[in-house]
Amino acid sequence: MKKLLSHINSPKDLRKLSKEALPQVAKELREFIIDIVAVKEGHLGASLGVVELTIALHYVFNTPNDLLVWDVGHQAYGHKILTERRDIFHTNRQKEGISGFPKRSESMYDTFGVGHSSTAISAALGMAIASKLQNNFSKQHIAVVGDASIASGMAFEAMNHAGVTDTNILIILNDNAIGIDPSVGALKMYLTNVKKGIQKQDNIFEALNFNYSGPIDGHDIAAVVAELERLKSVSGPKFLHVITTKGKGLQKAEEDQVKYHAPGKFDKLTGELAPKNTSHLPPKFQDVFGHTIVELARKNGKIIGITPAMPTGSSLKFMMEAIPERAFDVGIAEQHAVTLAAGMATQGLIPFCNVYSTFLQRAYDQVIHDVALQNLPVIFCLDRAGLVGQDGATHHGVFDLAYLRCIPNLIIFAPLDEIALRNIMYTAQIGLEHPIAIRYPRGRGSLTDWKQPFSKIEIGKGRCLRKGSKVAVLSIGHIGNQLQPILETIDTDAQIGWYDMQFVKPLDATLLHEVFASYDTIVTLEDGVIKGGFGSAVAEFASQYQYKNTLHFRGIPDAFIEHGTMEELYEECGISERKITEFLSSLL
Amino acid sequence: MKKLLSHINSPKDLRKLSKEALPQVAKELREFIIDIVAVKEGHLGASLGVVELTIALHYVFNTPNDLLVWDVGHQAYGHKILTERRDIFHTNRQKEGISGFPKRSESMYDTFGVGHSSTAISAALGMAIASKLQNNFSKQHIAVVGDASIASGMAFEAMNHAGVTDTNILIILNDNAIGIDPSVGALKMYLTNVKKGIQKQDNIFEALNFNYSGPIDGHDIAAVVAELERLKSVSGPKFLHVITTKGKGLQKAEEDQVKYHAPGKFDKLTGELAPKNTSHLPPKFQDVFGHTIVELARKNGKIIGITPAMPTGSSLKFMMEAIPERAFDVGIAEQHAVTLAAGMATQGLIPFCNVYSTFLQRAYDQVIHDVALQNLPVIFCLDRAGLVGQDGATHHGVFDLAYLRCIPNLIIFAPLDEIALRNIMYTAQIGLEHPIAIRYPRGRGSLTDWKQPFSKIEIGKGRCLRKGSKVAVLSIGHIGNQLQPILETIDTDAQIGWYDMQFVKPLDATLLHEVFASYDTIVTLEDGVIKGGFGSAVAEFASQYQYKNTLHFRGIPDAFIEHGTMEELYEECGISERKITEFLSSLL
Repeated sequence: MKKLLSHINSPKDLRKLSKEALPQVAKELREFIIDIVAVKEGHLGASLGVVELTIALHYVFNTPNDLLVWDVGHQAYGHKILTERRDIFHTNRQKEGISGFPKRSESMYDTFGVGHSSTAISAALGMAIASKLQNNFSKQHIAVVGDASIASGMAFEAMNHAGVTDTNILIILNDNAIGIDPSVGALKMYLTNVKKGIQKQDNIFEALNFNYSGPIDGHDIAAVVAELERLKSVSGPKFLHVITTKGKGLQKAEEDQVKYHAPGKFDKLTGELAPKNTSHLPPKFQDVFGHTIVELARKNGKIIGITPAMPTGSSLKFMMEAIPERAFDVGIAEQHAVTLAAGMATQGLIPFCNVYSTFLQRAYDQVIHDVALQNLPVIFCLDRAGLVGQDGATHHGVFDLAYLRCIPNLIIFAPLDEIALRNIMYTAQIGLEHPIAIRYPRGRGSLTDWKQPFSKIEIGKGRCLRKGSKVAVLSIGHIGNQLQPILETIDTDAQIGWYDMQFVKPLDATLLHEVFASYDTIVTLEDGVIKGGFGSAVAEFASQYQYKNTLHFRGIPDAFIEHGTMEELYEECGISERKITEFLSSLL
Repeated sequence: MKKLLSHINSPKDLRKLSKEALPQVAKELREFIIDIVAVKEGHLGASLGVVELTIALHYVFNTPNDLLVWDVGHQAYGHKILTERRDIFHTNRQKEGISGFPKRSESMYDTFGVGHSSTAISAALGMAIASKLQNNFSKQHIAVVGDASIASGMAFEAMNHAGVTDTNILIILNDNAIGIDPSVGALKMYLTNVKKGIQKQDNIFEALNFNYSGPIDGHDIAAVVAELERLKSVSGPKFLHVITTKGKGLQKAEEDQVKYHAPGKFDKLTGELAPKNTSHLPPKFQDVFGHTIVELARKNGKIIGITPAMPTGSSLKFMMEAIPERAFDVGIAEQHAVTLAAGMATQGLIPFCNVYSTFLQRAYDQVIHDVALQNLPVIFCLDRAGLVGQDGATHHGVFDLAYLRCIPNLIIFAPLDEIALRNIMYTAQIGLEHPIAIRYPRGRGSLTDWKQPFSKIEIGKGRCLRKGSKVAVLSIGHIGNQLQPILETIDTDAQIGWYDMQFVKPLDATLLHEVFASYDTIVTLEDGVIKGGFGSAVAEFASQYQYKNTLHFRGIPDAFIEHGTMEELYEECGISERKITEFLSSLL
């Protein structure tokens, strides 16, 4: 059969085909995604699941004039390939290559940049209202939202508004019963009942005043096309429930949807994952968290684990398996996760609330208003703090030190290594008088012999790891590990001191006084934004005590950092081993 | 008839009464609230509406062992009076007096501190899970939530979780069809249909797996008591829909529910508001915003106004009346409000998104991820920035400068006075290349002749308002007005310079270089938190350019500030006229 996909550069080409040709396009698009992701890595399952839906959307609607918003964007690979990016799709998630998510600056077909969940309905509604005000009544506005994402509060807020407008908005629920991990919650149960026919059609979305249709089979491309064509002429807010299978078309990806969300390299025919021998490597920080909370919770019955939809990503799944009655996946609901933890803490429980640094932005008010203001000893574990690499600007956890540091009562700790993470978790569950945020990075630590007996960390105490005479480097967290090899190389006569400050708050004032008294020049090193962050805290300290030392800040500059490898991004931000070496050498 | 309320010191006393006596208690409690709020001021309407419900809850449930969580807390005056605070209720909202909201440190009956909306279900669920884990199966957990509050995303997240638990949680929907302003949205429409019998009982809350009952008349105390007693023995998550009237029992408060939300002083018999002649005073900042956006929007058809449930408080109501098709109240949905604005901005509209400073914490991720990352020129107007007085710790808008300053692309401006607010609004709608946050305080400005012709403000420029020689005060925003009279008094030989910096970001580097070169000592003055805030920005600047001047920060210290008059709180924070005078004098 003649190949079709290679002739489709934009949706215009797609629309020239007959409907009968679309299944062939679907087959080729699926193969194209598999072929490239198998070697280049990336998010696989979500895009495989919406191949037919993606084709149908661009076939029926007049994109980019009609405005299509993908929620989260893990599922947008097919969309990218059909919209002028087929030939550069292999640069996906590489520095200077295309982004793993829809991104406005990349294509006019990417109408709204995404990455965090549940924003699509609000954005599409804003566009739909704009069209109406501009007297453009034929333009279509479509938000494609997954079932895990639609259960998040923000999506509900948007539906609550959309339902009382007369805008031309279509919400498509891409219901595959899974986000990154299986979906949870009452709405998911409800949707399951709808699918099984147990729940009547008179449904929750109709209650919110949407014109509801479905559920339909999202892999029946003719059915999807027909329904979208019908909906084009229905006015007002519409809701279409589409059932899909995550990983569709690659058997192993259908069978293990969690693993194949972003499987790394795999065999494109069999789906077998490329073998990785990682047993000799230091563990991932997330696994140190996951194993340690189980170890602690077995001894301390008050410990609770909470994750908003990241049991696998946070490794809280270890506790969910070992002690299910005390480990909670609450779905994509960061706000609820935090205040739920606060409620538990009022009753004497010890909740560990594990949220990716970038997603805690979603629960900022809850951290201030429900936890810190009441001084409840909730233990926040912020995974993916600092730069995260290929996920890029939407996912870097670089603001946390700045946005948390201004909150009274809150302790902020960043472990240098796995042992420090374990010990601060141990320390926190003994009983703190304040809430604490423990932030650690994506990826692996620096130690293989990390499983040491617990010891208590004194709150607010930093450590001198190397005495110097001229320049002191104050580091916070994992990024400090860059220093050891550098100092051994460039500073053989011990001019540079190294201090692992551990706590951004409270700062170790005693140690800082010592440092400011002993060194002329002080360098702060962090993998968060400099503005308002750790360096800023040290500058405030210096001003407060009228120290006149020379201060230099090293950290993330005041710009959004795009995607790339960690090494590339560290280099760009001036905190790679090479750049730090250069900089410190210039001070000697 | 024998008086009852004066003998009720705690719910134990209440429970000794017969059911037949409860209407009399309700009558007295209502009078008690009216008598005191009429002279002491406070939130009136919400508490009057739940008098019967409050009595019924404490009568039926075994508080404080059973755990009762009020959402928001405007409605909790009756609760406070019945729970050991009758005799100190007159100190409501005064410094060192009781808080206007439930507060854990104040009473064991206040199980969870509130102020911001929609937190109660999460908190109560956390408590309910704790009880279950502690094998306490008889304990009851009750969240009382208003209909405006339950439409907020966070409440949905909590219900979505609660519905799949087998915890002993009861959600009571206090449905009076109004928050501070009338409720909006599809859920409100749905609830109205339920009340009118148009919507079947098989409802949205049942879809979320709650055992639903209602709607019942919330002023029929016998009916409410009977239903609560029945629900006590129903296991699992329960939902009771109660219909009440805000302001119940004071005719004027029932008739004008918006005005009587917090009416100030009034006549306790007639309800007539105490006359206020304010025509000679400078306007409120919110009104300058409200009138100016109408003035600008009449000329610029792209301007949109958005408020999350604060049309009256923000004065966006002026635009909602004048140009309703371009002014949107989206309900208590800050997250949606921000991303809706972002969606509009992608289509060339110019959205002014007006959110109280403290409530923008709810949409922090949306500001970063949906607006700033995409560099969409949304105009944020942050009302109630700085200290807010009697509403206290939950409502002070003191973190904004710190949490916004770390966000790339974002411009941050604080007007000194009404003219600066008007001019920055004018400047912003001409077209900026970045989003901007304009933050201004609660209350009145400093000028009566504020309605001047518009002029453009240069982005990133501060102003020298007074040349000095020795000490420079760098102020940001309205708090700078404290300086004029002080400097005229204590500094007759012009040693102190005064700079209104206007922009926290971008900082006026040219002006700062000039200041650091010309003065030995530099003082920053702000009404936000010092940590990470404006002073911190200046400290970073000083370090960056290795200036060795002496720096002093004046602003909000690193603690939660409680309620009190503005003057009392300024004094406490060291930024009252008296304290600033003292401090600056010490530098001369």
